[in-house]
Amino acid sequence: MPPQHESAADDEKLWAELGLDIDFHRRVVEAISGNFARQVESRPLRPAGMGYFDGLIHAAHGRRVREIMARKAAGAKFVGTFCIYVPEEVLLALDAAYLALCGGTAVTIPHAEKTFPRNMCPLVKSTLGLAFSNTCPYASLEDLAVGETTCDAKKKTWDILGREGGFHVLEVPQKKSPAGRKLWLEEVRAFAAALEDTTGNRLDAGRLAEAVRLMNRKRRALARLHELRRAERPPISGTDALVVMQAALIDEPARFTEALERLNEELAERLTRGISPFSDGAPRIMISGCPAVLGNWKVHHLVESAGAVVVVDETCTGTRYFSGEVAETDDGLEARLEAIADRYLGVDCSCFTPNAERITNVLRLARESRAGGVVQYVLHACHTYNIEAINVAAALKEAGIASLKIETDYSDEDAGQLGVRLEAFLESLEFRNGR
Amino acid sequence: MPPQHESAADDEKLWAELGLDIDFHRRVVEAISGNFARQVESRPLRPAGMGYFDGLIHAAHGRRVREIMARKAAGAKFVGTFCIYVPEEVLLALDAAYLALCGGTAVTIPHAEKTFPRNMCPLVKSTLGLAFSNTCPYASLEDLAVGETTCDAKKKTWDILGREGGFHVLEVPQKKSPAGRKLWLEEVRAFAAALEDTTGNRLDAGRLAEAVRLMNRKRRALARLHELRRAERPPISGTDALVVMQAALIDEPARFTEALERLNEELAERLTRGISPFSDGAPRIMISGCPAVLGNWKVHHLVESAGAVVVVDETCTGTRYFSGEVAETDDGLEARLEAIADRYLGVDCSCFTPNAERITNVLRLARESRAGGVVQYVLHACHTYNIEAINVAAALKEAGIASLKIETDYSDEDAGQLGVRLEAFLESLEFRNGR
Repeated sequence: MPPQHESAADDEKLWAELGLDIDFHRRVVEAISGNFARQVESRPLRPAGMGYFDGLIHAAHGRRVREIMARKAAGAKFVGTFCIYVPEEVLLALDAAYLALCGGTAVTIPHAEKTFPRNMCPLVKSTLGLAFSNTCPYASLEDLAVGETTCDAKKKTWDILGREGGFHVLEVPQKKSPAGRKLWLEEVRAFAAALEDTTGNRLDAGRLAEAVRLMNRKRRALARLHELRRAERPPISGTDALVVMQAALIDEPARFTEALERLNEELAERLTRGISPFSDGAPRIMISGCPAVLGNWKVHHLVESAGAVVVVDETCTGTRYFSGEVAETDDGLEARLEAIADRYLGVDCSCFTPNAERITNVLRLARESRAGGVVQYVLHACHTYNIEAINVAAALKEAGIASLKIETDYSDEDAGQLGVRLEAFLESLEFRNGR
Repeated sequence: MPPQHESAADDEKLWAELGLDIDFHRRVVEAISGNFARQVESRPLRPAGMGYFDGLIHAAHGRRVREIMARKAAGAKFVGTFCIYVPEEVLLALDAAYLALCGGTAVTIPHAEKTFPRNMCPLVKSTLGLAFSNTCPYASLEDLAVGETTCDAKKKTWDILGREGGFHVLEVPQKKSPAGRKLWLEEVRAFAAALEDTTGNRLDAGRLAEAVRLMNRKRRALARLHELRRAERPPISGTDALVVMQAALIDEPARFTEALERLNEELAERLTRGISPFSDGAPRIMISGCPAVLGNWKVHHLVESAGAVVVVDETCTGTRYFSGEVAETDDGLEARLEAIADRYLGVDCSCFTPNAERITNVLRLARESRAGGVVQYVLHACHTYNIEAINVAAALKEAGIASLKIETDYSDEDAGQLGVRLEAFLESLEFRNGR
C-alpha cells in the first residue's frame, strides 16, 4: 500500500506534534507542491502507475513521516542519509528505518545563508535550511545522521552539524587504489558497527543476504525503467522518471520496487501500443552530473517544456544510484560486506581522481540511449562536477555528441535565461541532424 | 649566496629561450613587481636581512629559473608542487629540484577562466592561468608535477592537467582514523616510488635522515621567526614575515634556512634595541585560513596599512607549514618514511573532518601571540576554510576573541571595501580594549 494522501488538518496536527514552525512549514510544503503541480502533474499523457510515486511526493511531509514514527514506536531506529554512497543493505539488514534528507526547495535556503556561505551548493543549503528553520519533519525523529566525504561542502558541513553528536561520517576515498579500497572497506565495517550500536541489533549474514537481494531487485527495476526510456518514442517523460528516482530515495525498498515493477509493465504495454507523451523526432537529451532531489524538477521541466525528451539521467538521481549490483555470495558476513563495499566503490562520483570510468560511462550511456545532446547539470558551486565537465565535454565532442553545461541553483530567477539557452541548444541539435 | 637580480635584458633572453609569451610574461612580472614595491618594499623600518628574501621574490622568474636549469643540466629532475602536504624530505633525499608552483597574481586568471569555472579558487586559477598563457617559466622544465586531494578544486584540476601524464596525485585522507593513516602511509610510499622512477635515484636511509634534519632545522628557524613576532612591539611586520614564508616555498632549503637564521639574529638584536616598524599598542591581528602565495600580499597589506600588526599566520604560508618536526629515528628507511608520514598527517588542514585539532591550535596560537582579533582569510570559493570558519569563529567568540571573516580573491576591486571593513574591525578591537 502506498502512503495515502491525508487531509491538510491531519498534517498540521502532525507538524505541531513534531514541534515544527507550522507557518513556515506550510510555506515549504506549498512551494514544493506548487512546483510539483506546475512542473510535473500538469504533464500530458502521464502513466497511471505514476499515481503511486506522486502519492509519495505528497506524503513526504505527512504520511511518510507517520510511517517512520510508527516504525520507531515499534522499536526501530531512524537514520537520515544525504548520499547514495551510504550502503542501504546495511541499514536494511539492521532493521533501521531510513531515508535521504536532501533538500530540493529554494524556500529554506535563506535560513542556511544566515550562518553558512552563500556561495555553496543549493542542495546542501536547502537541507540545512530545513533543519535551521525547524521545518524538517524528520529532524526530531533522527537517531543517527550519516554523512560522507564526497564533496568539500558536505564534508565540512558535517563538522558543524556533528558538534552535538548523533552524526556518523563515512569516508569515501578519493582515488580508486588498492589502499583506497582497503580504507573504504574499513569505513563500511565501521559504519555497520556504528549502526549496530544505534539500532541495538547485530548484523547477520542471512539478513544481509536478504537485503542484498532486495536492493539488487530494486536496482533491476530501476534499470528496466532506464531501458524502457531508450525507445524511439519513450513511454514516459524524463520528468516522471525523475519523480520515480526521487521516490526511490525516500520509500521503503520492497514496496517501492513492487510499484516500479507495475509501472514498468504499464510502460512496456504503452510501448507496444505506441503511447508516448512525445512527438516523433523530439530531440533526445541526456542529463549528466548532479542529482535533482525531491522538490527540484527545474532542469527536466525546462528541457521537456522546450519539446525535448530526457532519455537518460547520468546523475546520482539516475544511473549512479542503480548501476552495478552487489555480488550475491554465500561466503558469510565478511565476504558480503566486501561485496557491498565493492559495489559502492564502483559508483563513478566526480569525487574521484582520476575518473576515467565516468567518462567511459557517459559515452556509453549517451550512445545506448541515442542521446542527440547532453545537458551537463551542475549545481551552483559544485566544484567536482563543474571541473569534471571539462573532460566530459571534451570526450563528448570527440564522440560527435553536442553538450551544454548549465550551472544553476534552485531559484526561478535564471529560468528564463536557461530556457533560452536550452532552446538554442535544441535548435542546434536539430540543425546538426538536418531536421 | 642568494640568487642575484639580473638585468631585464638577460631575463627576456631567458624567457625567449623557454618559449614563453614574452609580452604577456612581461605584464605578469610587472604586475607582481608593482604590487611588491607598493605593498612590501615601501614599508618602513624593514630589517636588512629582508634583502635576501626580496631578492628571491625578484628572482622567481629569472635567476631562480636559471638555477633550476643548471640543476637539470647537472642531471637533477625538476618537480613542481602545489601544497605543503607534499613531503619535501623525500624530494630532497632523491636529489630532486623542486618548488611550489602556486600562482598569486590576478593577471593570469582570465586565461584560466576561458576553460575553467570562474567560481573557483583564485590560487588555482592563477596557477592554471600561468600555464595556459604560457607564462610559467617552470612549466617546460617540469619532469613531474605532484598534486594532492586537499580540496575539490585542486583535486579535479589534476584530472584535467594529468590527461597528458607527468602528474602524480597524492591522496590525503579526509579523516584522521587508523585506516586514514594507513592510506596516507601507502601514499607516501607510492610518492617515493614514483619519484624514484622520475629521478632514477634510489631512496636511501642515510640521505633521508639528512633531509629530515635539514627540514627540521628549517622548521625551527621558521618557528623562531614566529616566536620573535610575539614581542610586545614585533621587530618585523607580518607582511615581511609572509615574504619569508613565500620564499620558503621556492628556495633551496639549506640556503633559505641560513638566511633566515641570520634574519632571526637581526630581529633578536632589534628586540633588545627596541626597534619595530610598529607603534606601541598597535592592534595585534592573527590571520587564519588560506595561504597567501608569492604575488599575493593583499590582506596583510590592508591590515598593516590600517595600523595593525599581523603577529601570527595560522595558514599554509604560516604555522601549518612549519609546525611539528619529523621524529628523527635510527630505525631504517621504513621507520623514517613512517615518521615523515606522521608529521605531515599532523597538519591541521581544513580538508579533514572533523578538525577539532585546528580549533585547538587556532585558540592556542591566538593566545600565545596575544592577538586581539583574528582575520579569517578565505580565498574565494574555498569551501573548506569558508565552512570551517563557522566553527573557528564560534570557538574564538567563546574564548572572548573577536574575529572577522574575509572572503576575497586576487583582484583589487574589493580592496576599498575590505579596507573599510578592516578599519571598522580594528576600531571595534580598540573599543573592546578600552583604548
